[in-house]
Amino acid sequence: MKIIDGGILAAKGFSVASCATGVKRTKVDMTLLVSDIPAEVAGAFTTNVVRAAPVDYDSAVLKKGKPIRAILVNSGNANACTGKVGIEDVHTSASMTAEELGCLSDEVMICSTGVIGVPLEMEKIEKGIRYCSRNLSCEKDKAHESALAILTTDTFAKEVAVEVTVADKSVRIGGMAKGSGMIHPNMATMLSFITTDANVDRTYLQSLLGSSISTSYNMISVDGDTSTNDTVLVMANGTAGSPLIDADSEFEEVFREAFTYVHTELAKMIVKDGEGASKFVEVSVTGAKSDEDASLLARSVVSSSLVKAAFFGADANWGRILCAMGYSGASFDPSKVTMRYRSEKGKIVVVEEGTPLNFDEELAKKILGENVINLDIILEDGSSEAMSWGCDLSYEYVRINGDYRS
Amino acid sequence: MKIIDGGILAAKGFSVASCATGVKRTKVDMTLLVSDIPAEVAGAFTTNVVRAAPVDYDSAVLKKGKPIRAILVNSGNANACTGKVGIEDVHTSASMTAEELGCLSDEVMICSTGVIGVPLEMEKIEKGIRYCSRNLSCEKDKAHESALAILTTDTFAKEVAVEVTVADKSVRIGGMAKGSGMIHPNMATMLSFITTDANVDRTYLQSLLGSSISTSYNMISVDGDTSTNDTVLVMANGTAGSPLIDADSEFEEVFREAFTYVHTELAKMIVKDGEGASKFVEVSVTGAKSDEDASLLARSVVSSSLVKAAFFGADANWGRILCAMGYSGASFDPSKVTMRYRSEKGKIVVVEEGTPLNFDEELAKKILGENVINLDIILEDGSSEAMSWGCDLSYEYVRINGDYRS
Repeated sequence: MKIIDGGILAAKGFSVASCATGVKRTKVDMTLLVSDIPAEVAGAFTTNVVRAAPVDYDSAVLKKGKPIRAILVNSGNANACTGKVGIEDVHTSASMTAEELGCLSDEVMICSTGVIGVPLEMEKIEKGIRYCSRNLSCEKDKAHESALAILTTDTFAKEVAVEVTVADKSVRIGGMAKGSGMIHPNMATMLSFITTDANVDRTYLQSLLGSSISTSYNMISVDGDTSTNDTVLVMANGTAGSPLIDADSEFEEVFREAFTYVHTELAKMIVKDGEGASKFVEVSVTGAKSDEDASLLARSVVSSSLVKAAFFGADANWGRILCAMGYSGASFDPSKVTMRYRSEKGKIVVVEEGTPLNFDEELAKKILGENVINLDIILEDGSSEAMSWGCDLSYEYVRINGDYRS
Repeated sequence: MKIIDGGILAAKGFSVASCATGVKRTKVDMTLLVSDIPAEVAGAFTTNVVRAAPVDYDSAVLKKGKPIRAILVNSGNANACTGKVGIEDVHTSASMTAEELGCLSDEVMICSTGVIGVPLEMEKIEKGIRYCSRNLSCEKDKAHESALAILTTDTFAKEVAVEVTVADKSVRIGGMAKGSGMIHPNMATMLSFITTDANVDRTYLQSLLGSSISTSYNMISVDGDTSTNDTVLVMANGTAGSPLIDADSEFEEVFREAFTYVHTELAKMIVKDGEGASKFVEVSVTGAKSDEDASLLARSVVSSSLVKAAFFGADANWGRILCAMGYSGASFDPSKVTMRYRSEKGKIVVVEEGTPLNFDEELAKKILGENVINLDIILEDGSSEAMSWGCDLSYEYVRINGDYRS
């Protein structure tokens, strides 16, 4: 697997266009991603009962089981909690895009992110659709603009692309994502778009997406809130000319690894950009009784406000970590827990097989003073493991979210 | 029901003593609560898998089903995650207290709160036990000192007492509690002690405690973390000379109301003292499909970091509230939700039957600028209702928890 440039345009046969519709005043806030030929699609959506209009629309399109041509994304307005008007607006956007591209409206998916409860300014959206449809480009540098167009409170664009070999053919998988607040296990206000020129069986692609999500986006947490708009969409257009990959393919493993890598890297970037985050924390749980227990433990730790505040304060407060493990719902033996902090400044074991150690507080402070911290939780209950990623809880988080709308 | 003074000494036949053991350096950090005669006891403990040594000890004592004489509480050290030493220390404390009081060691319960993972300084604890056992007093002003002795990061003592008439006899129920951080549905680092001189059947008392908890401590949230030490203990010594109250008693209702009132008031005080909290928010959910749905919705709203940050910023961001309802796990119809903010500055409806209203942002800002805010969530799914209480998420919370140990 080779890491390459180009984001969502790394794969062949895709083009994009972006523009500033005016919804976000001055910033680029719309992007249109198009596959030259109909592409197989897979999707995953928020588990929130309150779903934005585009989420309902997209899942209905996905259920039809047909290939799609395009994904239209706008930022600045989530088109969530907008009632009947919101649903009409999604349909209008889809059919308008379809008309411009010369395809059917159920070959277009729509995503929105931003403020909840305010109807879309459709005049601006329509102008944007017209502009984007007529200015599509496959030049690689356009991918970055596209990654910028989907951002809200994010501070940087999140892109990744890799290349792997499938039966002597190079195939590419690229992606972009947005999300910084409301990020939590079970997908929060997060959008992620993946393109690949591999030839992938649709059923396999959907099941692969499901498992990739469970070890990437579902293992990060910024603030514990899941949102109305979370969406992950994958388009596979097969233009690389490689043989079909399905669950039984000899190339399944190499493709799965690359595909999961793309999602995991995007997930980690989202956490690194966590609202107000000053630290990135990677939690590893090993020796758990089951995969589910390992996941529950790893997720509970990165989701705890008290643990996050302790990381902010560079405080080796392992009691809070053990406590968060305790209410995770996982089964484990607290008297067998070993815990270790690591960073560029060194490593330190603070609890060994359930026994608190008299550790060097000065060294702990130094290790936890770094921007990237590893926390290893070693259990003796079995052989399952999981990783999760989180950030600290800072003054900045409170400031940003104290008045997001204005 | 009459609200009276005296906290845990309002009820007859109880005495206390408090002292500064030195664990918390200068502050009073130990209190011993004693009933003149053996009292029926009911208890509830944390649901966290990681339980402090005193929690294990107390639940074992409770299971014996015998009346008890005393509760010893220390603050500053939670005796949690302290391994075998921690368990030994609890037994030593209990037997020492029993010896001093001339009772059996399984007539003494022990509670601890404070830092996790550090063994108790038993010399200090033992000196404290000796002092308290020999300086017991039933003077009402000693109750306040007792309420102060159990605090950690709390900024004020939490006490309440009421008097009701049972068969022409006055009976009293008093209580004190501590807790400000780690407060969350399912009881967080929270201790609550209730005394009553009513004559109460033990089985009934335990079941009443269970239902009272579900509408009081389990309906508050400060930061979503549940802890290793949460304990609620009730002692009923019957010294008022009133007839036995059990589930079938004609006085059951009057007692239940008073009992639940005491717990609810203590729970609200805990939230008002939420770490760094500048606002108190009361959430009312009506018209829910079932009691469970109503509870899930009310709790999810006060637990959301994003909702809490919006209250901090006086931002009428009802989209975040609807979103938190959406991931609560409750069943409800988002298109029928009405939402109203209220405070001393007026009231404002922001969503009516699912439709966002063009409300007066200036007025909303004024209403949300107050320290006490009501949020009414009106559903059309049924006739169940629930209330929950929470606070805002402030810079102060981050500051306090960024370095609690030092």
